[in-house]
Amino acid sequence: MTEIQRLAIDAIRVLSMDAVQKADSGHPGTPMALAPIGYVLFHRHLRHNPANPSWPDRDRFVLSAGHASMLVYSLLHLSGYDLSEEDLRNFRQWGSTTPGHPEHGHAPGVETTTGPLGQGVAMSVGMALAERWLANRFNRPNHQIIDHHTFAICSDGDLMEGISHEAAELAGHHKLGKLVWIWDDNRITIEGATALALSTDQERRFQGYGWRVVHVHDGNDLEAMDLALAEAKAETERPTLIVLRTTIAYGSPGKAGTASAHGAPLGQDEIDATKRNLGYPSLEPFHVDVAAREHWSACERKGARLEEAWRARFAMYRTEHPELAEELLSVLDGELPADWDEKIPDLSAVEKADATRNWSGKVLQGLAARVTNLVGGSADLGPSNKTDIVGAEDMSSATPGGRTFHFGVREHGMGAVMNGMSLHGGLRPFGGTFLVFSDYMRPAIRLAALMEQPVVYVFTHDSIGLGEDGPTHQPIEQLAALRAIPNLVDLRPGDAAETEVAWRVAMERRIGPSFLALSRQKVPVLDRSSLASAEGLRRGGYILAESSDGAPEVILISSGSELSIALDARERLEAEGVPTRVVSLPSWQLFRWQDPEYHERVLPRSVGRRVSVEAASTFGWERWVGLAGASVGIDRFGASAPAEVLYERFGITAERVVDTVRRLA
Amino acid sequence: MTEIQRLAIDAIRVLSMDAVQKADSGHPGTPMALAPIGYVLFHRHLRHNPANPSWPDRDRFVLSAGHASMLVYSLLHLSGYDLSEEDLRNFRQWGSTTPGHPEHGHAPGVETTTGPLGQGVAMSVGMALAERWLANRFNRPNHQIIDHHTFAICSDGDLMEGISHEAAELAGHHKLGKLVWIWDDNRITIEGATALALSTDQERRFQGYGWRVVHVHDGNDLEAMDLALAEAKAETERPTLIVLRTTIAYGSPGKAGTASAHGAPLGQDEIDATKRNLGYPSLEPFHVDVAAREHWSACERKGARLEEAWRARFAMYRTEHPELAEELLSVLDGELPADWDEKIPDLSAVEKADATRNWSGKVLQGLAARVTNLVGGSADLGPSNKTDIVGAEDMSSATPGGRTFHFGVREHGMGAVMNGMSLHGGLRPFGGTFLVFSDYMRPAIRLAALMEQPVVYVFTHDSIGLGEDGPTHQPIEQLAALRAIPNLVDLRPGDAAETEVAWRVAMERRIGPSFLALSRQKVPVLDRSSLASAEGLRRGGYILAESSDGAPEVILISSGSELSIALDARERLEAEGVPTRVVSLPSWQLFRWQDPEYHERVLPRSVGRRVSVEAASTFGWERWVGLAGASVGIDRFGASAPAEVLYERFGITAERVVDTVRRLA
Repeated sequence: MTEIQRLAIDAIRVLSMDAVQKADSGHPGTPMALAPIGYVLFHRHLRHNPANPSWPDRDRFVLSAGHASMLVYSLLHLSGYDLSEEDLRNFRQWGSTTPGHPEHGHAPGVETTTGPLGQGVAMSVGMALAERWLANRFNRPNHQIIDHHTFAICSDGDLMEGISHEAAELAGHHKLGKLVWIWDDNRITIEGATALALSTDQERRFQGYGWRVVHVHDGNDLEAMDLALAEAKAETERPTLIVLRTTIAYGSPGKAGTASAHGAPLGQDEIDATKRNLGYPSLEPFHVDVAAREHWSACERKGARLEEAWRARFAMYRTEHPELAEELLSVLDGELPADWDEKIPDLSAVEKADATRNWSGKVLQGLAARVTNLVGGSADLGPSNKTDIVGAEDMSSATPGGRTFHFGVREHGMGAVMNGMSLHGGLRPFGGTFLVFSDYMRPAIRLAALMEQPVVYVFTHDSIGLGEDGPTHQPIEQLAALRAIPNLVDLRPGDAAETEVAWRVAMERRIGPSFLALSRQKVPVLDRSSLASAEGLRRGGYILAESSDGAPEVILISSGSELSIALDARERLEAEGVPTRVVSLPSWQLFRWQDPEYHERVLPRSVGRRVSVEAASTFGWERWVGLAGASVGIDRFGASAPAEVLYERFGITAERVVDTVRRLA
Repeated sequence: MTEIQRLAIDAIRVLSMDAVQKADSGHPGTPMALAPIGYVLFHRHLRHNPANPSWPDRDRFVLSAGHASMLVYSLLHLSGYDLSEEDLRNFRQWGSTTPGHPEHGHAPGVETTTGPLGQGVAMSVGMALAERWLANRFNRPNHQIIDHHTFAICSDGDLMEGISHEAAELAGHHKLGKLVWIWDDNRITIEGATALALSTDQERRFQGYGWRVVHVHDGNDLEAMDLALAEAKAETERPTLIVLRTTIAYGSPGKAGTASAHGAPLGQDEIDATKRNLGYPSLEPFHVDVAAREHWSACERKGARLEEAWRARFAMYRTEHPELAEELLSVLDGELPADWDEKIPDLSAVEKADATRNWSGKVLQGLAARVTNLVGGSADLGPSNKTDIVGAEDMSSATPGGRTFHFGVREHGMGAVMNGMSLHGGLRPFGGTFLVFSDYMRPAIRLAALMEQPVVYVFTHDSIGLGEDGPTHQPIEQLAALRAIPNLVDLRPGDAAETEVAWRVAMERRIGPSFLALSRQKVPVLDRSSLASAEGLRRGGYILAESSDGAPEVILISSGSELSIALDARERLEAEGVPTRVVSLPSWQLFRWQDPEYHERVLPRSVGRRVSVEAASTFGWERWVGLAGASVGIDRFGASAPAEVLYERFGITAERVVDTVRRLA
């Protein structure tokens, strides 16, 4: 290691220690350990342009061990991204671009939000899949317009999380040769030595997944790291795991190699001692040597050259393949094609009873016909979720440009891969499973919502209506649990027409995820000629059927497969002379976003006699029915029996709704 | 295979086909494939007594591939458990003991509820750990009172799920030599060939985990299976994976080996063809040959002998070690010792501000001193969760009788292992992580609630009050999402006194899980001399501070670290002449279980001016504040900054509460 390299690397250590100390909070040890690999990666290997963090063909870098955020902030700062020393000094402060864990959309160059362990590595798989898909679709002979690698740095914790298994299996199965994970093998966890809870031979494990495994025995050996990365990049058939042996808090005389260096400031004395121990030229906080800065600035020059060369290549590509080039730019911008909805079947007035999952499948085919970057599938429930794109090839290692993705029984991995695809840009991913198994993928759904990614979840078998599979498969609390996630748009359409509009809403959304909750069982036809248009779904809730005299004394609120029960109850009440309105509420989130006037129009304050009916937990329904109203729902787990029996036994019936109305004051 | 063996095995196939056909719903293919291994296991290897499914020293059997429920129902029926042909005929019907997926507490002999893939295998690890722990604690020289194996049958789907990774890593790390997983390697998933989504070399993968791997190349080769199981049982240092190559729907001329045999009835014609193809003596549905029945009845005779011998051994043990024997019987019954709470510190009147997580840690030490079967730990956040049992050994392969368990960064595995320990009997498990990461373990929490297991989750860092780690670590919607789960008791204590009572409630609960939501940050001392006793927590919610005149015009409702904010707001309102009551609502679930009179007493209908304050999503709060009230909470994701700044910025302050009250009609 040359003197200047040492200075350039120690600058990362120093900035990390100092920022954590100043914030009086954070994780200094890992950035200190990983400073050399960060240097080798950012300075030598990563094809990136600090001046333009959104250059489409840049290599992607994911710090899956998000607690080591000061590593990536230091690297971004030193290599010339728009991240100032002032930003570093504001580490972990309100409104700063340098939050405690890296957050997408804050510091430029942060490709994704990490911190919940395992998510980063799993998202990196989605990014690598997206790269290959786009390369397959858009590259042409002599035109390698999309051609980049995806690197992720991960911790022991990342590899212990189950999601790492799901993601690594998928990466191996798909032969993602351009994916590289660097495992920080530091033998330390929060509770102490990793040996307390881990004896896995990761090399064997990853070889089992079909990965190549490369070892670097000293996390300060630049040439070994260089070689390992070169080997990884030369590999085209297998993803690579680089096992990097490091020492947490390297350089700290008192804390190197100890768990205490993980999650707390080192303390000013220890920081000073470390700087002295490293032979750092100054004790001044945030000091970076001029020569080190100059050395780092090579990243900017190299990055500018790389992007310039790409732009020249892209210009030639655009000349020879103008339509493809426009399409590429359009999908990278996240735009829908102008004719995106041309092939969606008109479901506004169907006459056949069917399950909403089937209507969804039909809409999906129409979407897929025009939205050519719509890709997705199911966690091994495609035939049930109706998520296959008919006639499309599978996305596989043999046919990487295919569009139906077999996620396997890996809901959590699916969620993260969808996030990675979406973050990469160029794809509109969707993924399906049973609604109850949304529980398996909640951490990934939450990240999609936090990062505002427009992914679409297709959750079928959305109630006890699935019948005999019983309580393990029947969602009860899932609707409430999902509706509670900020930024996530819930969509539980009740007939063909609403299903069509729900998909439209989900696709038109540019910012944030949506899910469709769809029935396994057939739902009756809603006669839209005598009911309001399903376009009302766009506002979340709407008056589906007005009371006969237009002045309701009772409001029934419902969604999805229970809409027809509400309509049935309304008829009975009207027959008894009770003016009754039915409100369809397929999306709480969309409805909440409406103005108070609209809320008042749909749910007038003056009508306190309100009853909700939904075959799910009543949790949260008081928001719409208030304390004067009541909810017909299911506040226990389900049971195994035919669907009709369950609706009867659990009292999700028009009779019970009418009865509940009668009991209201 | 002898003729009688063939008949005995084909009986499983026939019962499975016929029951699925009669229910017109279910999964026939896998029971047909696994009939031989089921036979070898139940007839030859499993040490169980059909006459007493709760014999404590029985081998445990888990059908992780729960969709193949007819396999276990057939086995239980044929081997003599109290499960009649009538029960099989009622497969998947309302109120039957034979629901679509095996449910604990329904058919006798079903050790756990399975169906959500991966959960069964993960729970089996908890069972094997419990066995070893109990053996270590209670066995004495010449007295092997606890000495049994745990077997699980799993599918490709089980092994794809991330939780299988977490559980298998733990099993390997803990050298669970008495754990055996049998993998149904049928090369078929719902979407088609497993090769669509899977290329993992499971042998390498599991060897990486430290498992022994044994192959059986033909799922109908009884002697090979016998040998494999014998080898597995002879192994003491490593868990064993038996790779069993099978053919789904074996015997069916038209559907064997196809995905179509997975999840739907075969159809009567195909069933008849299958019976003919198998040379089965009758086409009569549910027919079991008399000789086959007689052959199966050996299980009952052998089982009775086994348990009798054990009872004789236990009687001798009881004579020589009367106290140990009583303790064992007591913990197996799930009873707390008479003096269980003797060492709990009295926190009813502490004078020091501290975090509720710290108070929790103190209570835990007191509990651990007397409840000797209280075992648990954290998913690598012990120092933060305060879940270490001070002075106790770690539970490890070297010290299997230890009590602090290092789950590693494996929240989901932790949840399932806790379930397995609890189901096994003899242990009271607890497990900790940050509240936000409850998302990672939701499917296991849900199963605990469904199976009514008295496990305790210790969720610390329960709000934005954790500060700088930012939105990925700050729970917002988690409280609502957990409160929506049926049977799960939420406990969010607000001071030392409530923390003590919360732990008491959780420990006293025999049926169903509980979680504690605890603060990272210090909470102010609540002066209980002028406030109501924290014993009120037992009813979920209670009047913490009455309005000065006893006739409140305003009610503030709060929980946890926000209680002091509510009390502060009350003082300001009272100073303005507004009679204000503060209700502490640490447990929605417990409060919901109170009678209407109590609800009316705490939250009288006549007082509509109610404001809630909780540093979390307001989702669901209308249940308590109604439409006339309002909620001070956080309906967006958090941010990275010091805790005080966040409370201020997000408006979780007394000022805002007062302001909100003023705006109410």
